[in-house]
Amino acid sequence: MFWLTVTKNSYTPLIRQIYEQIRLRILQGELNHGERLLSTRELASDLHVSRNVVLEAYEQLAAEGYLVGHEGSGTFVAEGASLNDLRSDTQPLSAPLREQPTASGIIGFRTGVPALDRLPRRKLGQLFHALCADAPPEIFNYGQPEGSLELRDTLSRYLKRTRGVRCDPDQIIITTGAAQALFLTGKALLTPGDRVITEDPIHLHFQGTLQACGASLHPVPVDESGMITSLIPRDEAARLLFVTPSHQFPLGGVLPVQRRIDLVQFAQATGCYIVEDDYESEFRFEGTAVSSLQGLAPEQVIYIGSFSKILAPALRIGYLVLPHSLIAQFRRLKYLVDNHSPILDQLVLANFIENRGLELHVTRMKRLYQKRQAALIKCLAASFPGQHRVSGASTGLHLIAEFKGIAFTEEVLSSLEAVGVRLYPVEDHALEKGHHLHQVIMGYGNLTEEEIEEGVKRMRAALDDI
Amino acid sequence: MFWLTVTKNSYTPLIRQIYEQIRLRILQGELNHGERLLSTRELASDLHVSRNVVLEAYEQLAAEGYLVGHEGSGTFVAEGASLNDLRSDTQPLSAPLREQPTASGIIGFRTGVPALDRLPRRKLGQLFHALCADAPPEIFNYGQPEGSLELRDTLSRYLKRTRGVRCDPDQIIITTGAAQALFLTGKALLTPGDRVITEDPIHLHFQGTLQACGASLHPVPVDESGMITSLIPRDEAARLLFVTPSHQFPLGGVLPVQRRIDLVQFAQATGCYIVEDDYESEFRFEGTAVSSLQGLAPEQVIYIGSFSKILAPALRIGYLVLPHSLIAQFRRLKYLVDNHSPILDQLVLANFIENRGLELHVTRMKRLYQKRQAALIKCLAASFPGQHRVSGASTGLHLIAEFKGIAFTEEVLSSLEAVGVRLYPVEDHALEKGHHLHQVIMGYGNLTEEEIEEGVKRMRAALDDI
Repeated sequence: MFWLTVTKNSYTPLIRQIYEQIRLRILQGELNHGERLLSTRELASDLHVSRNVVLEAYEQLAAEGYLVGHEGSGTFVAEGASLNDLRSDTQPLSAPLREQPTASGIIGFRTGVPALDRLPRRKLGQLFHALCADAPPEIFNYGQPEGSLELRDTLSRYLKRTRGVRCDPDQIIITTGAAQALFLTGKALLTPGDRVITEDPIHLHFQGTLQACGASLHPVPVDESGMITSLIPRDEAARLLFVTPSHQFPLGGVLPVQRRIDLVQFAQATGCYIVEDDYESEFRFEGTAVSSLQGLAPEQVIYIGSFSKILAPALRIGYLVLPHSLIAQFRRLKYLVDNHSPILDQLVLANFIENRGLELHVTRMKRLYQKRQAALIKCLAASFPGQHRVSGASTGLHLIAEFKGIAFTEEVLSSLEAVGVRLYPVEDHALEKGHHLHQVIMGYGNLTEEEIEEGVKRMRAALDDI
Repeated sequence: MFWLTVTKNSYTPLIRQIYEQIRLRILQGELNHGERLLSTRELASDLHVSRNVVLEAYEQLAAEGYLVGHEGSGTFVAEGASLNDLRSDTQPLSAPLREQPTASGIIGFRTGVPALDRLPRRKLGQLFHALCADAPPEIFNYGQPEGSLELRDTLSRYLKRTRGVRCDPDQIIITTGAAQALFLTGKALLTPGDRVITEDPIHLHFQGTLQACGASLHPVPVDESGMITSLIPRDEAARLLFVTPSHQFPLGGVLPVQRRIDLVQFAQATGCYIVEDDYESEFRFEGTAVSSLQGLAPEQVIYIGSFSKILAPALRIGYLVLPHSLIAQFRRLKYLVDNHSPILDQLVLANFIENRGLELHVTRMKRLYQKRQAALIKCLAASFPGQHRVSGASTGLHLIAEFKGIAFTEEVLSSLEAVGVRLYPVEDHALEKGHHLHQVIMGYGNLTEEEIEEGVKRMRAALDDI
C-alpha cells in the first residue's frame, strides 16, 4: 500500500504523525478515492505502535471527511478529498523585510526615544508580578472598549494636575499609543477627501495615518512659535485641524496663547475639531509645562497623549481625551477595531501613576535630558562655531540644528552613516519640500553624554569632507 | 488688583497655583490687556512665598504669551489673551456608558471566556518579573510593525505542530486580538461596497468589523458541517470569504475536507482570499485537533488566531498568518494603525510557548472543559428530557442547545435574567433573521460544574412559567 514512518521520541504525538502522513497522501492524490487502507491492526503491527494510536488517527481522518469506514469491510479513502494543485511548502522571504532598529556601532540621533536604561523596570516588574499574584480572576476577562476605569480615573487627575486638561474618566479612551489615537480619530470623523489642516512639517507617520483615513492634507507653515494661524485657509470647511502646540513636531516651537485662541475661535466658528498631539510636553526645561490647548475648549479639542516618551515606547499605551459628543462613536469604533487595549499593562500603569511613580520618573528624566541637551549644544558649539544654529530646544527629547551651506541630501546622510552617525532630516516630515534642507532633528533622549560627544565628532569629520 | 490664594501643602506646586490662577483670570477677561500686575516682590510678600516662585510663574506666563514685561516698568497682560466664551467645567456623563461585564449573582452562559481562575498566573507573573529584570534596555524601545521575532518564531513552529499551519515567521503579524486581525484584513483589502461572502450566522462583532471596512456581506447558510459551500454565489466576484472551519461560530460544525477543497478551488479560480478564523480549535474533544484550512492553500488563505480563548482575553494578543504577496501591505497598514503591538506581553508569551507552558495549559484546560461540557449536557438532559437537542459540541467553549417550542425573544431572555441566568441567542448573530429562534449558545468555559447545574435549574424554573 504505502509507507509510513513514525519517530517515537518526537514532540509530535504518534497519532498526529500517522494522521498527517495519510492526510497529505490523500490530498496529493497518492491515495485515491475508494482505495482501501491497512486495517488498524495491520498498520499498528507494521509501525510497532499500539492499535489505539492507529484507531485514533483513522477516526480523526474519518471525522474530517478523508476516510470512510464500512462495518466489517474496512476503511477507504473518501471521495473528493484530493487537492490537485496543493502547493509546495512556502519559502521564507529571500531577504528579511525588517529594518534594523539600530545598526551596531552607529550613533543615531533619533528623536522620541527616552532613556531606555533609566526605566524603573524593577518597579514595573514588581507591579506585574503583584498584579498576577493578587488580582481577581475577572481582570483576565474581556474588558470595556474605553479601557480600565482604574487607569482612566488616575489619568484624568494626572492630566488635570500636570497638563491643565479638563476631563472626567468617561472622556478618556485608552489606545495602543498615539498612532492608534490618531487613526481612530481619522477613521471616526473623516470621509475620504475631507480636508485636514495640519502644521507643515508634520510627522511623516502621522501624514500616513491621516491619509490612510482618506484625509486631504492642507499644510499651514510653521515658524519658531508653531503654526502660523493667520495663514489657515478659511475659504473651505475643514473637518480636523492637527497641531502640536506644546512642542511643534519637529521644529519645536511653543504655540503662544494668541494663536491658541485663534485656533479655538476658528474651530468654534467652523465646527472643525482641533486634534492636539501633546507629545513630550512634560519635559519643558524653561518654566513649568505649558498648559494644554484642550483646557481652553474641551468640547472642541480631541487631545492625544502617550506614555511612549515619558516611559517606554514598547508599552504602546496612549489615550484620547474626547469631547462628550464623540464618546459613544469612538467607543464603538475602538470595539470594532480591536475590542480594547491589553488590560494588565493598563493596571500596572494605573498603579504606577497613582503612587506618583510616573511623576517622580518624569522629574528625574527631565533633569537627565536637560544635561544631555546641554552637552549636545556645547559639542555643536565647539565643533561648528559660527556655522550652525540651534532652535526648538525649550522642551522634549530633541532640538533642531541648522547648518549653513549643508543640505542633508541622501548622499550627505550616507557619508555620515559611513562614519557611524545617523541624522534625521526635517525635510522628511515636510509636506511642501525644499524649505528645510539645512535642518536636522537631533534627538538626545537615549544617548549618553559620551555618545553625544562622539556623535558630533563624527559629524564634524564627515562634513569636513563635503 | 486681584486676589490670589495659595495652599502650602498641596500636591500642586506653588508656582503652578499662581500660574493657573493668573492664567484663568486673563483668559476669562478678568485681567485685561495692558493691565499691570503686582511686581514679583509685592506679590511674593502678599502671598508669603519666595520671590523666585512668583518670578517663575510670571516667566512661564510670559513664555506662553499671557504677559509681557517691559524692562524697568513692570509686567503687563498681553494683547489678545482673553477667551470670551471659555466654557465652564465639563460635566460627567449622567449615566455610565459602561455595561457591567457580569452583574453580580447572575450565571451567564457566555461563550468565548476561558476558565479565568485556572490561568497559570503565577508563572506569567514570574515571566514578566524576570523579563523586566533581565532583558536588554532595547526591548523597551519601538519595535517592528509585525511584532517580536521571538514570538513569531515560536508561534510559527507551534502552529505547524498543533494546527498544520504552514508558514515562516515573516508571514506572521502580531495583532491586538482576532478583532484587529480581521479589521486589518478588511482595511487592507476592501474598497467600500466590496462583496464579502460569510457564513450565516457569523459573530455579530465580526459583522460590525467587516462592515466598518465597507464590506457588503453575502450570507451563505450553515448546516451541522459548517458553511454549505455548494450555496456560494458564483455570479459575482467576491474579495473575501470568511469561514470558521474548525468550529463554526456559533453553530459548531466542523467543515469536512470536501467543502474545504471546494473553498480553496473557488478562491483559486476567482482570486478571492479565504479568511480563516481558527478560534478554539485546540479544544477538540473527539480525536486530535482538526488541521487548518491554511495548510491546504497558504497563498490563498489569511489565517486568524488568538490567545484569548486558550489563555486570556485580557492579553489582547492575536495574529495573522498571511500569503507572501500580502506581507508588505499588511505591515505598512499595521504601522499606520498603531505602530506595533505591546512588546512585553509578546515576549512573555513567546517564552511561555517556547517552554511548552501553553501546550500544557491547553491540555489541562481541554480536560476541564470536557468535564464542564459533560456536566452541562447531563443537566440539560435531566431538566429538559425530550424537549431539547444539543449540537456543535465537538470542540470549544460552548455548545448549541435548541428548545422545542421556546423562542428566545427579548421577553423570554428578560424572564430568564430575572431568575438569575443569562443566555445568548444564536439569532443575535444571524444575518438572515428567523431561522434560529429556538437556539441558544451555551458557554461553559468559565463556569464551575456547580454553577452550570444551578444555571440550568434556573432556566427550568423560568421556562416553566412561559
